[in-house]
Amino acid sequence: MRDDVLIVTQAELQILLGLSRATNDLIESAFTALAQKDVIMPPVMSMDIPHINAEVDVKTAYIPGFDGFAIKVSPGFFDNPNLGLPSLNGLMMLLSARTGLAKAVFLDNGYLTDLRTAAAGGVAARHLAPKHVKTVGVIGTGAQARLQVEAAYHERKFEKVLVCGRNDDHARKCAKDIADKIGVPTYPVAAREELVRQSQLVITTTPSRVPLIDAEWLHPNLHITAMGSDQAGKTELDPQILPRADRFVCDRVSQCIELGELAGAIDAGAWDIERTPIELGDLVVDPSLGRQSDSEITVCDLTGTGAQDTAIANYAYDLARAKNMGTPIKSHN
Amino acid sequence: MRDDVLIVTQAELQILLGLSRATNDLIESAFTALAQKDVIMPPVMSMDIPHINAEVDVKTAYIPGFDGFAIKVSPGFFDNPNLGLPSLNGLMMLLSARTGLAKAVFLDNGYLTDLRTAAAGGVAARHLAPKHVKTVGVIGTGAQARLQVEAAYHERKFEKVLVCGRNDDHARKCAKDIADKIGVPTYPVAAREELVRQSQLVITTTPSRVPLIDAEWLHPNLHITAMGSDQAGKTELDPQILPRADRFVCDRVSQCIELGELAGAIDAGAWDIERTPIELGDLVVDPSLGRQSDSEITVCDLTGTGAQDTAIANYAYDLARAKNMGTPIKSHN
Repeated sequence: MRDDVLIVTQAELQILLGLSRATNDLIESAFTALAQKDVIMPPVMSMDIPHINAEVDVKTAYIPGFDGFAIKVSPGFFDNPNLGLPSLNGLMMLLSARTGLAKAVFLDNGYLTDLRTAAAGGVAARHLAPKHVKTVGVIGTGAQARLQVEAAYHERKFEKVLVCGRNDDHARKCAKDIADKIGVPTYPVAAREELVRQSQLVITTTPSRVPLIDAEWLHPNLHITAMGSDQAGKTELDPQILPRADRFVCDRVSQCIELGELAGAIDAGAWDIERTPIELGDLVVDPSLGRQSDSEITVCDLTGTGAQDTAIANYAYDLARAKNMGTPIKSHN
Repeated sequence: MRDDVLIVTQAELQILLGLSRATNDLIESAFTALAQKDVIMPPVMSMDIPHINAEVDVKTAYIPGFDGFAIKVSPGFFDNPNLGLPSLNGLMMLLSARTGLAKAVFLDNGYLTDLRTAAAGGVAARHLAPKHVKTVGVIGTGAQARLQVEAAYHERKFEKVLVCGRNDDHARKCAKDIADKIGVPTYPVAAREELVRQSQLVITTTPSRVPLIDAEWLHPNLHITAMGSDQAGKTELDPQILPRADRFVCDRVSQCIELGELAGAIDAGAWDIERTPIELGDLVVDPSLGRQSDSEITVCDLTGTGAQDTAIANYAYDLARAKNMGTPIKSHN
């Protein structure tokens, strides 16, 4: 048994792994496990620190069959930009599922979270986006706007990307970055309505607390992934969108009821609480639950799960060991 | 600003810090903060993994005025002894209270937890034990049996220690270790009743789920610290002991109601739920709430708080930086 703990930095992880079809596969396996296996995933531990305009979330999940389980710490310090630092950071631990001993600490500053979050969007696109997506529209101009489009590109070979954000400069920069990364013509657009009406796949990636997409803009041959809402009070979709979709899918129903678009729709009385949404993992196990025709309107609500963290942490660990990367620290006397 | 993360191992921590009156002071300051300051301490995150006879707890607390806050991961893998490994392990992180960036990862295998847990017993002894303690009795023969007696010895210069455990060999070994460590004659005893009747300070340190001390054994000039119960269902004291004590003190009432002796006494109908116990931090702020005479019977219920972790993690970090110990890892590109 190895008794050292592997410390792996963000720079090393960026060399070891990125977005790919394999990363989408990996995250798909986490959702399959959530749907099929006896996964143990306690509620998110959340500490709000209003004194300093900060919050810290801790997530974990045990998945039978994985060698380790992740514990992830995600601080959000919203005054950090004043110090020239990003608001979001964090680190992740991997503990042995056999002994509880630490196997690795990933000083990733949220990089693994970025990947596993974008890859969940990739999995949603795989099972829910129309077969032929010509145009992808992304609302928001942050890191996830770029990564979600990249993850989706491993699933659908679209020809055009539209980007819409509150700040024109940020939208232009985001469009350029996307075009540079995946080589698809990408344009900033001023109006969200135009973006939604022209796209077959729409991804919302904002921390908004007011709906950004109106139910009136829906059209056949459309999938929407809303990944911004991860806290009570956040919402990106008109609550009426959920009941009007042919299929509404959650990453994890128990979380979306508390934190996601589903929470907003229930609060607004738009969602019949007797109706249990499908989960992303159910689509993997039973494809008949996914999109059945191009004409459908589908929606996926992503809040982020500890199961994704456990999947990517195990993968990163195996890669780091195989490539002899990271700093091993002897942790036992 | 330092942008590296300091990795500190158990072996390094054992050189840097141990039990002392200063460590008791430090943990007392955590309880003072809990009583006086706007401390933020979310409920413990607890993941039971029955598949593998394991549990994992995560604790955290933000204390205004401390440079960092700890997040502590405590796995208990109860089949580990079959593999020649201890059941309890764990690691602790220290995050900057200003930016949320990781300052340190302590690969301590529970060492800092052992210290801060014992030091809480030291603080309880400071404020609640009779002024003159001749004999200390400890029930349980594990690491905390040894450490609790050591922490108490920094507060009262007792002359004799009695040890009682289910396994005679373990009790003998524990007695020898205590005598070697603090130089006080220490004897194993067979009966818990004898131990309680002869002692002025009794410490229970077991994971018991049945009471180990009978209310009939109480006598004037006695303080009991029960530190074993940290989970619903665990209990070490006859529920009738709590109402019969002149003073019943909790480390944190909101936790003891869920996890501690208080939970058991409430379940048994022995504690009037309208009566709010004193907290350990209140005694520091207002000594008139502590023991007022030798004849009193006092009881302290310790469940362990994230505030203690934050206090000791900050202290360990400052010591490690001052002594240039630990392995700094550059975590930002």
